[in-house]
Amino acid sequence: MNMINPQESNVRVLLARRPTGAAVAEDFSIVEEAPAALADGELRIRGEWLSLDPYMRGRMNDGKSYVKPVDIGAVMCGEVVGRVVESRNAQFAVGDQVAGDLGWQTLAISNGQGLRKLMPNVPAAAQLSVCGMPGVTAWCGLLLIGEPKPGETVVVSAAAGAVGSVVGQIAKLKGCHVVGIAGGANKSRYVVDELGFAACIDYKAGRLREDLKAATPKGVDVYFDNVGGDILDAVLARMNPFSRLPVCGLISQYSATELHGLRNFRSVLVNRIKIRGFIVFDFREHYPRAIDELATWLAAGKLKYRETVAQGIRAAPEAFIGLLNGANLGKQLVKL
Amino acid sequence: MNMINPQESNVRVLLARRPTGAAVAEDFSIVEEAPAALADGELRIRGEWLSLDPYMRGRMNDGKSYVKPVDIGAVMCGEVVGRVVESRNAQFAVGDQVAGDLGWQTLAISNGQGLRKLMPNVPAAAQLSVCGMPGVTAWCGLLLIGEPKPGETVVVSAAAGAVGSVVGQIAKLKGCHVVGIAGGANKSRYVVDELGFAACIDYKAGRLREDLKAATPKGVDVYFDNVGGDILDAVLARMNPFSRLPVCGLISQYSATELHGLRNFRSVLVNRIKIRGFIVFDFREHYPRAIDELATWLAAGKLKYRETVAQGIRAAPEAFIGLLNGANLGKQLVKL
Repeated sequence: MNMINPQESNVRVLLARRPTGAAVAEDFSIVEEAPAALADGELRIRGEWLSLDPYMRGRMNDGKSYVKPVDIGAVMCGEVVGRVVESRNAQFAVGDQVAGDLGWQTLAISNGQGLRKLMPNVPAAAQLSVCGMPGVTAWCGLLLIGEPKPGETVVVSAAAGAVGSVVGQIAKLKGCHVVGIAGGANKSRYVVDELGFAACIDYKAGRLREDLKAATPKGVDVYFDNVGGDILDAVLARMNPFSRLPVCGLISQYSATELHGLRNFRSVLVNRIKIRGFIVFDFREHYPRAIDELATWLAAGKLKYRETVAQGIRAAPEAFIGLLNGANLGKQLVKL
Repeated sequence: MNMINPQESNVRVLLARRPTGAAVAEDFSIVEEAPAALADGELRIRGEWLSLDPYMRGRMNDGKSYVKPVDIGAVMCGEVVGRVVESRNAQFAVGDQVAGDLGWQTLAISNGQGLRKLMPNVPAAAQLSVCGMPGVTAWCGLLLIGEPKPGETVVVSAAAGAVGSVVGQIAKLKGCHVVGIAGGANKSRYVVDELGFAACIDYKAGRLREDLKAATPKGVDVYFDNVGGDILDAVLARMNPFSRLPVCGLISQYSATELHGLRNFRSVLVNRIKIRGFIVFDFREHYPRAIDELATWLAAGKLKYRETVAQGIRAAPEAFIGLLNGANLGKQLVKL
């Protein structure tokens, strides 16, 4: 099982074209190839789990962003957990479980750079979610930018998602009044009943502003933003003096052909808000501490998570389109 | 001259009603009253200079802001430099020159709280501008939030105004490439020829985006925002990774009946921008150092400034309306 089978092919999902607005199945193409031979220093990984994340939508666009876009015809980027099946690299042995940005494919080649060995005491798939990039993103954005204090009110959008669910649970551990925002009654129930947030607002119910006001009687001290757009506008109007606003994602804007015009920016001045956009790579030096703390909380039963799993690499495009439409609950994974 | 004359009345400008959109003369009323007798601990100041500042427009509105609005029928708020003409307060003697928030009036009563004695070696009026609140605002916002480094590009809007002109000159002293944005060819010439900025964009010329691009070939590292609105949107599109954006004012929005919808907020995430709204009161502990540095630069001829002076308290409303429309060059003062 840990060795490559000579007949085994590599199935890869490529970016076929750049989407206009929402991504559709035709923006991807699927190819099946014979695996290339390894060069010296390289190793081959058979993927077990592929992580799907909203940021990938940004990489499908051309234009200036924090990392370069995926080229047309190239394999889609993405974190994978898998097992080494062949190695010409002294750092990695056949059978090692590793994680890294190996892309949407079943058999990846790596030179070992950026690859990390899995922690033995944490489930493999959780190392792509609560103890992986989404969890570390939540930890860094909330604690290093949001700086929540006990008794403060913390609001997080996409609260049922891989990042938002961890943000809210950490804020609860820090003694905050935690309010989520999510799409649909099902997700909102999950956020309150299972994750233990004080409240969750279903923005699809059409009473965003009223519900937000009722759920944050003392205003908002930290807003961890995953979505931007109209929800950001609504929360800006509830921010307290000297509040903090980490900007982690703008899901509502990724596929937008017409950008939302933010109307409540005045609150930034009136309330002396600190806003900071970030991506997790900006905080590399904090990864070990973040992962250690997350793993400790997970082992102690203090962090809950859910996974939505699509079966097989060929299901990845559809699962990704669903993710952008909010179809998933918790972490969206593909079982390879 | 330093004593009160028994026939002298106090001329006061009151807020007559709350403006809708742009402030007009009818929003103010002018009254002339006999001065009240002093209580124990109080002192009387005859105003010499009144400072007019854009923030006052915000105080004319009702609604939540960082300080409470001016009440209808109350004297308009504002910093005044004047001389003590009568004192029942041991801290202040007749003849002392002082500055404080004494309002739009010719004879003010104070209990001494928040009043400061003038520095002897700096012109009195300059203690309302380059070495007063606007200068300290520039110093704090630029140095404590903007954190400019030598060689970086600093952009400031309302560049010919009391705050903006000091921001740009400090940034120059710190070795930055400084670009101003101002309204009209006259102001733009002043900013370049007299204040020594590398460039100044006349936003009224109708080529804001093109001119900004040409003037900031290496992008923008610090944007000190005094105006908000469409200019903020244009600069957001030029911000560099890890750039800083102190929000000091939103003049373009103060009188707006229809708020600008900010379209380029995405740049905050893509470029991991730090935005922070502030008012100068947030930095009280830095005032002594700021004033000391500003006075030193001024004495060394390293800080230039201009004043636009209206004559007499009765001219204050018109001068203030002009200030909001950008009629002034440099600091808008009223000679009382």
